[in-house]
Amino acid sequence: MLPDKVRLFEVGARDGLQNEKQEVPANIKVELIERLVDAGVSAIETGSFVSPKWVPQMKDTADVMERLTRKEGVVYSVLTPNMKGFEGAVASKATEIEVFSGASEMFSQKNINCSIDESLERFLPVMQAAKDKNIPVRASVSCALGSPFDEEIKPEKVAEVSKKLYDMGAYEVSIADTIGVGTPLQTKRVLYAVANVIPLGAIGVHFHDTYGQALANILAALEMGVARLDSSVAGLGGCPYAPGATGNVATEDVVYMLDGMGIDSGIDLKKLVKTAWFISDFLERKPVSSVANALKSKLD
Amino acid sequence: MLPDKVRLFEVGARDGLQNEKQEVPANIKVELIERLVDAGVSAIETGSFVSPKWVPQMKDTADVMERLTRKEGVVYSVLTPNMKGFEGAVASKATEIEVFSGASEMFSQKNINCSIDESLERFLPVMQAAKDKNIPVRASVSCALGSPFDEEIKPEKVAEVSKKLYDMGAYEVSIADTIGVGTPLQTKRVLYAVANVIPLGAIGVHFHDTYGQALANILAALEMGVARLDSSVAGLGGCPYAPGATGNVATEDVVYMLDGMGIDSGIDLKKLVKTAWFISDFLERKPVSSVANALKSKLD
Repeated sequence: MLPDKVRLFEVGARDGLQNEKQEVPANIKVELIERLVDAGVSAIETGSFVSPKWVPQMKDTADVMERLTRKEGVVYSVLTPNMKGFEGAVASKATEIEVFSGASEMFSQKNINCSIDESLERFLPVMQAAKDKNIPVRASVSCALGSPFDEEIKPEKVAEVSKKLYDMGAYEVSIADTIGVGTPLQTKRVLYAVANVIPLGAIGVHFHDTYGQALANILAALEMGVARLDSSVAGLGGCPYAPGATGNVATEDVVYMLDGMGIDSGIDLKKLVKTAWFISDFLERKPVSSVANALKSKLD
Repeated sequence: MLPDKVRLFEVGARDGLQNEKQEVPANIKVELIERLVDAGVSAIETGSFVSPKWVPQMKDTADVMERLTRKEGVVYSVLTPNMKGFEGAVASKATEIEVFSGASEMFSQKNINCSIDESLERFLPVMQAAKDKNIPVRASVSCALGSPFDEEIKPEKVAEVSKKLYDMGAYEVSIADTIGVGTPLQTKRVLYAVANVIPLGAIGVHFHDTYGQALANILAALEMGVARLDSSVAGLGGCPYAPGATGNVATEDVVYMLDGMGIDSGIDLKKLVKTAWFISDFLERKPVSSVANALKSKLD
């Protein structure tokens, strides 16, 4: 039941850079995004419209969106937690918006200071406005395989939140292992529960590699027919609110596996690896990606 | 078809340390092996009897074997490529010996300076002597998923060499991705070919994490029912003869996945992680293991 092709949603320029220590100027973000699109990325998170007080790294999203030379057919997605953010997204001509909720009440309270249901209610006007303007909405469910508070996350809870987001109008619901603790059978259990209430084609997955399990979990998801994968070039990012969490799974490592399995991602691995080194050189460190390091000497 | 339990064969003290730059004294090797056994490891590679000219890191194997306080029922395995090595193994009271061949003619020529068939012939007296003395023989097949020379390795070739080794008396044949290039479907294809000619229960797998694929490949092998896994504490080692190859998959990352999947390895993850830090502290670097790093702050 492996898919023939997948859609990779590239999160490096937002979820990734937001969680890096160094500030990255707009021109570097623009070059990063354009290089990723040139490598074949067809859906990319470009920034967020949130309070610069909370997320200073994303304060230049409007500027980045303005400067971008866009490619026909590519989805340029921005995170918009509220109506003010939505207006920024519309003004910047984002082609998709994103909202997120969680499967952990404790994480929701500590991270966004409200209950899960309250977080969903807050999105209602955003989802309605997006519908009116015909802008697709992608949603994600954080802490779907564990939370920083050692609580058990029930697959049914993940399914319940996923269904609410889907029913509110999200065309895709990305199931996120925010702290990277999940293992393959647990991944399958959660995805079975979610696929029981929303279409398989609407399900995405978002894995962190904290415990080295991300690729094995992605394999488990692919085996269930899931064909929407989040990943981050050079393994950029992490989650500052989740103690111990390290970065997202690296896009290069995912594309290498997909190439080896004959699953089409539309991405040119060599260009992607060069892009991973471009941003890593700027950050003055190596990519957190086995493939980017293994292939470095073979780039030219 | 997942197994309920697996046998982990711990290679850190030989395959691992042999490929590290620093020299490790016998007393540290002994402590490493004893700590691993205390953590629940039941089969462990303790050294090799090969020319100290070629492998200076293993010149003290007899000393290590002499000093070890052994635990009943644990397999203490040594690599013995020839009769001289075999005599050393017998004198040191090894409970198992290992031989290796390869699936790549080019690698065989460059690595051990003979053809695959010649390498197999060289083992014949060793295998016969082991049979006479009732010492179990484990074999491994290197370059089973790729070689440093960009040649295609046919699954049928891997199967052919595996069958020869099995027929010569090896109770286990470990299929090794020496340069860490394999992906999950390729892993399954090779294992299908091997399982077609020797019993599934005799098949082991040995993955390197050069391209980050090791855990996904192990998942693929487990899904086929393979229940013999090689791994290396702290991800020690690599292969000096294979350009670009990095270390073995870390035992901690494998055990974490197995624990999460309810597959019994008999290993205590916390003790194992402490052992990974013990040897890594000696080597003055971090373990090459996501789990060992993620759990460090949770050890006491």
